[in-house]
Amino acid sequence: MEALKQKLVDEGIKPTFQRISILKYLEENSKHPTADMIYDFMRKKMPTISKTTVYNTVHTFLENGLINELTITGQESRYDINTHNHHHFLCRNCGKIYDVDIQCPHGLPGKDVVDGHKIDEIHGYFKGICQDCLRKNSS
Amino acid sequence: MEALKQKLVDEGIKPTFQRISILKYLEENSKHPTADMIYDFMRKKMPTISKTTVYNTVHTFLENGLINELTITGQESRYDINTHNHHHFLCRNCGKIYDVDIQCPHGLPGKDVVDGHKIDEIHGYFKGICQDCLRKNSS
Repeated sequence: MEALKQKLVDEGIKPTFQRISILKYLEENSKHPTADMIYDFMRKKMPTISKTTVYNTVHTFLENGLINELTITGQESRYDINTHNHHHFLCRNCGKIYDVDIQCPHGLPGKDVVDGHKIDEIHGYFKGICQDCLRKNSS
Repeated sequence: MEALKQKLVDEGIKPTFQRISILKYLEENSKHPTADMIYDFMRKKMPTISKTTVYNTVHTFLENGLINELTITGQESRYDINTHNHHHFLCRNCGKIYDVDIQCPHGLPGKDVVDGHKIDEIHGYFKGICQDCLRKNSS
């Protein structure tokens, strides 16, 4: 918990117990949750937490670059604690979002301009059928 | 209009006057419109057209691969008549969506598998400040 607290302090975010707990959930959960999923999990542990607190915390984390926002489904925003340059795959069958091991050569230091536009965020979204669903369908 | 009509027939879509007109608008408009933007334009030319017709037509075009859906803003779906492998850039300042001239090596024939997942759709989304806004801000 101390490392998480320090992470918030380093970003100039007041390390309240609720914020630390939400950050902990995001660090331990790699399923790219929505704000509603975070709220559903948190209120089981903290029945007094409000939806507004969860939404505001997610917004604060986003503004400070602690998390990234994924719009891969087109239906909702999903959040990712892994802010390093990586891509995502959405399975059309099961809806699961996977990290994919592809590095994009653009947006790296010294390559932050494309067609004259200055880039500060990159998303690579792949859609199709995941390995697990392919296996189930073929068996 | 004849070529547009044929394009619909080739996809097994009944070439109604409204569908041909919507396809024409999409072909002549490279600004990646939302369904509402398409509707606003169409009703000026065809006051009797309904929002449902526009939405259903967009959905039919999407299902038949005549257009792609972009979820780059995270707020709404934008539509792109250019279905060839290309990426997009969203300007945080003016909100304009640009095509960017980057080819992704993944998803091409023979490279449609990533980490064991089968890919049928790829999106590369860049966000930042566009060339025009950079120029205006520096002058």
